[in-house]
Amino acid sequence: MRQSLARELSNLIERGRDRQLRLAVTGLSRAGKTAFLTSLVYQLRHAGLEARLDLLPAAREGRLLGAQRVAQQDLGVPRFPFDEAMLALDDSPPRWPEPTRGISELRLHIRYRPQRGGLLGGLGRDSATLTLDLFDYPGEWLLDLPLLDHDYLSWSTGQQTSLSPERRTLASGWLDAVADLDPAAAADEGELARIAQHYAEALRAAREAGFADLQPGRFLLPGDLDGAPVLQFFPLPGLDVDDRQRLETLPEDSVYHTLARRFAYYQQHIVRPFYQEHFRRFDRQIVLVDVLGALNAGPERFEDLSRALATLMQSFDYGKRSLISRLFSPRIDRLAIAATKADHVTPEQHVNLVSLLEALLGEPLKDLRFADIPVKAFSLASIRATRAHEVEHQGKHAPALRGTTQDGEETLVFPGEVPVRLPRSDFWTRQGFAFHAFRPLSREARGDGLPHIRMDAALDWLIGDKLT
Amino acid sequence: MRQSLARELSNLIERGRDRQLRLAVTGLSRAGKTAFLTSLVYQLRHAGLEARLDLLPAAREGRLLGAQRVAQQDLGVPRFPFDEAMLALDDSPPRWPEPTRGISELRLHIRYRPQRGGLLGGLGRDSATLTLDLFDYPGEWLLDLPLLDHDYLSWSTGQQTSLSPERRTLASGWLDAVADLDPAAAADEGELARIAQHYAEALRAAREAGFADLQPGRFLLPGDLDGAPVLQFFPLPGLDVDDRQRLETLPEDSVYHTLARRFAYYQQHIVRPFYQEHFRRFDRQIVLVDVLGALNAGPERFEDLSRALATLMQSFDYGKRSLISRLFSPRIDRLAIAATKADHVTPEQHVNLVSLLEALLGEPLKDLRFADIPVKAFSLASIRATRAHEVEHQGKHAPALRGTTQDGEETLVFPGEVPVRLPRSDFWTRQGFAFHAFRPLSREARGDGLPHIRMDAALDWLIGDKLT
Repeated sequence: MRQSLARELSNLIERGRDRQLRLAVTGLSRAGKTAFLTSLVYQLRHAGLEARLDLLPAAREGRLLGAQRVAQQDLGVPRFPFDEAMLALDDSPPRWPEPTRGISELRLHIRYRPQRGGLLGGLGRDSATLTLDLFDYPGEWLLDLPLLDHDYLSWSTGQQTSLSPERRTLASGWLDAVADLDPAAAADEGELARIAQHYAEALRAAREAGFADLQPGRFLLPGDLDGAPVLQFFPLPGLDVDDRQRLETLPEDSVYHTLARRFAYYQQHIVRPFYQEHFRRFDRQIVLVDVLGALNAGPERFEDLSRALATLMQSFDYGKRSLISRLFSPRIDRLAIAATKADHVTPEQHVNLVSLLEALLGEPLKDLRFADIPVKAFSLASIRATRAHEVEHQGKHAPALRGTTQDGEETLVFPGEVPVRLPRSDFWTRQGFAFHAFRPLSREARGDGLPHIRMDAALDWLIGDKLT
Repeated sequence: MRQSLARELSNLIERGRDRQLRLAVTGLSRAGKTAFLTSLVYQLRHAGLEARLDLLPAAREGRLLGAQRVAQQDLGVPRFPFDEAMLALDDSPPRWPEPTRGISELRLHIRYRPQRGGLLGGLGRDSATLTLDLFDYPGEWLLDLPLLDHDYLSWSTGQQTSLSPERRTLASGWLDAVADLDPAAAADEGELARIAQHYAEALRAAREAGFADLQPGRFLLPGDLDGAPVLQFFPLPGLDVDDRQRLETLPEDSVYHTLARRFAYYQQHIVRPFYQEHFRRFDRQIVLVDVLGALNAGPERFEDLSRALATLMQSFDYGKRSLISRLFSPRIDRLAIAATKADHVTPEQHVNLVSLLEALLGEPLKDLRFADIPVKAFSLASIRATRAHEVEHQGKHAPALRGTTQDGEETLVFPGEVPVRLPRSDFWTRQGFAFHAFRPLSREARGDGLPHIRMDAALDWLIGDKLT
């Protein structure tokens, strides 16, 4: 009896020693993934020293001893370039780190002292280690999930109807090129490659113009697949789902069947492997959203971001989607969503920013709650670029921000109010909001550490329970 | 009985109709792979029209009807960019096509009339189709084959001794960086990444300087693996194979074991998959060699090319190598080796060029003949850039070449004699050979078609027997 108790205790200690958490960070491009991960690593590494993490109990109680980067598990995945990111921030003038492309990975050992009354603390252990695997991947990859619910015909017809007037203008080169393509004609490889290039250019132009709802995601970051037929398909205008029977009888080498084969290959060899090899192994996830950027870009982009986020969040809502749950059964047990760049509005607006984020994700959040996945919304600044000021103007006190623009000019700005709900048309006509892009604080200006807003709150939600 | 004969005949016809050949083209970088493939596709497509293919019987006899590009099989492999290559050649001024990176693929349907007396001809068929799958991959990948015979320790010690004085100078940055690295110390990810970057830079510098014997091959074209730990290893100077026992007892997180794990991962996930997924499925292979370029670059490069080719050819000599034959069992039944850019020497030197190529590949050729793999040596120019002239000088007739240099100057040159055997030291001191880089002929200068030297002879060896 005593022996079995000893064995149980030993198992418990072992499990404690081996504790491991896989935390994934995603967001659409320019949402701030690289800055978030850089700050996360920095803050944990400097816990108890320069890093201020008062909202993370283990840090506040002096039990967090720091973190060290160690060898990652999957040698075939690029390492998250933390050193390069810090070099950019420490440069003069300071620069934002280069955005990552594709997936990257980093493993941290976090040392901490368990709570006295806690399970491990009670065992008299001085310190414990949490192994934190961090993953960073483009949110655009999650936008490809709905592709799996389609075959080529249904996807093709769906894509047609979703083009807004401005997106149609940006895609005019492709629309011209595809107009005369006959689905029944024998496929000409060169012609399909040319039209596909127009399609990829239309997607890139839309991204440049601030749109987020872009499919297929890999067309924007082809990597080693550049020039491969799998990235050379596109929707066929004028198709109707009622044409299915007629289309199915077309010859195997027709334009229609050639594009359909490529679509199926993309599903099988690009979309599925990401879910199977990576996504379903994440324990926790944070989704970063550049709400302020979209607010600044006007109603059409804001609408588009809302649609893209709804699509993206479906990946986490596996309860409802039997196809996905059967295929991938992800094990994410906690989700955070965060509006980034909160330092670009004055502090009293942060509450509004969280409300707006929750409004933007209204439907997906309801689904997640129904699926019983704990989710929490934040506003944060991974790496602070401004300082809050108060300005007296005609006898009134007004909140303002001081920061350095990308051109190197030190400015004082009044960004205005963040709407607390999804903005109605009069918000856009009033143009009540002006977003400025600032560069990071210089080493001198930021002092010790890497100032942030609520990184500690996000950390507490994402890993705090593992540090007790 | 009659029915079974009918069935046999029908099978025969079917087999005829489905005939298929997988032809791979390789060579070290700048050997002329892209020009060769471009010309090959062009010549077959224009057979019976502008293309002159007198050494290919099917063409000479007017039975070759042309070729058409059709959809390739593996949608995940980049398509060989034939159209882009032709655009470059047709540009004004004409340019050599951009070199390909990694593997690429292209499928041709070749239409021909079977010989009257032949099997298919006897069946009264008007025309038949040969499906030709073309693959193009970097010869550098084959240089990685010997890695599979090693573990990290034996590879590491072997790489040390193979560095020539000039290679050591080119690698000095890496040698400095690695000098103080203790194999027993705990691995620092950042430090290993930095030293590995120096190592990759040393390889790139060596390639720029004209060296060919470079390992590991993927360090030169990392693609999507850029920044991944699998491409962050390097030899450890000062190790000795006798240290094995001591090294094995080092901690798992030591520099030594960390590098050894990455080496093993590289073997498993980079080298093997190429042989398993591609190499062993090739039916025929041509290896292109820039003999003239190496001859021009001096004895150390020439030696180095010889070593690299010996290594590269081992991939085909599977008979002797039980490890390889067990793992991959390639089915290559015919091999061609070709000295490219033959138009850069005067025509009477072509015989010497072939002799020199055979001398350069002396040992590998003996092994291949022993393994009973039919192999033939050629000198050729895929796309002719010069015209042969005869010049009278002091009453003597001397052969010369006329071409346009890369700077756009039209010149008359006397490249000199190609040695018929491996050059001895006095060849190098005499400097008897001067190689000029020419740009392609303009559209006007080249007239109809794409002039070449002995592409038809190479085609006859590689596919001629399938066109009877």
